[in-house]
Amino acid sequence: MKVEYINPFVGSTEAVFSTMLHTQLTRGEIFLKKNAHPHYDVSGIIGLSGKAVGTVVLSLDENVAIGAAAAMLLECPSEINAQVIDAVGELTNIIAGRAKAKLEQFNLSASLPSVITGKGHSIEFPSNATPIGIPFESPWGPLMIEVGLIEQPAEVLV
Amino acid sequence: MKVEYINPFVGSTEAVFSTMLHTQLTRGEIFLKKNAHPHYDVSGIIGLSGKAVGTVVLSLDENVAIGAAAAMLLECPSEINAQVIDAVGELTNIIAGRAKAKLEQFNLSASLPSVITGKGHSIEFPSNATPIGIPFESPWGPLMIEVGLIEQPAEVLV
Repeated sequence: MKVEYINPFVGSTEAVFSTMLHTQLTRGEIFLKKNAHPHYDVSGIIGLSGKAVGTVVLSLDENVAIGAAAAMLLECPSEINAQVIDAVGELTNIIAGRAKAKLEQFNLSASLPSVITGKGHSIEFPSNATPIGIPFESPWGPLMIEVGLIEQPAEVLV
Repeated sequence: MKVEYINPFVGSTEAVFSTMLHTQLTRGEIFLKKNAHPHYDVSGIIGLSGKAVGTVVLSLDENVAIGAAAAMLLECPSEINAQVIDAVGELTNIIAGRAKAKLEQFNLSASLPSVITGKGHSIEFPSNATPIGIPFESPWGPLMIEVGLIEQPAEVLV
């Protein structure tokens, strides 16, 4: 995956947190995620397909998931419930949707978001698709976005 | 989601286990997955998009993941390692690929598979996309396939 493909996802994460959640993120260092490591407690995941295939993961500390859901719902959930899960799925969908519009050379469409919960869960990409990750800090705690994208060879597209 | 859309996924799961892994599956009762419940230890997940959007989850007991990987690799991994994870991703990809060919009215394309590990992890679909699940028994232990698919309203497709 080319590093420049991550930029639309970084930009859309920052923009969505800023405009929808009124929260500024501090960006950490980009990393190539070669080894399995646990994700945060709540991870939204959505697939992309078109002239490339890919996966976007938005992994949130529990406090971030609750804070983000509270900002979207205008009420304050006290735990990870169905509303928080829906809010995280919707955030993942919006971030991926905004980013794919900036990668129009791939004519990407997004699948349905799902939300993974469970302390210490880990999300692995295929070994030919080392994802790129970007950690962020928010006032609610840490989060991370990970993107794996593989350009499709032309013959697959026929 | 219409129940008839699950049939291609059931058929492709049985066919892939039979032809690729030389293993017969016993099918359990179809269920509507309305409440969160933990998945098995290893879950492959892949997105679908086209005239419908969806997600396919293949969730395997640890023994099933290792047994399936051993049948594909012709060697016997002793634990969930990178090879097992790749094998589960590939199985998920093949099952979804065969099934989508039988749902040609939706012109679906598949995203990149990812594999989730972690005892007690749970995968939630958006509340407007209650997935349908099918449990299976294999000689290695239990597994499950879950599919959520939402037909896209025509105006989204323009």
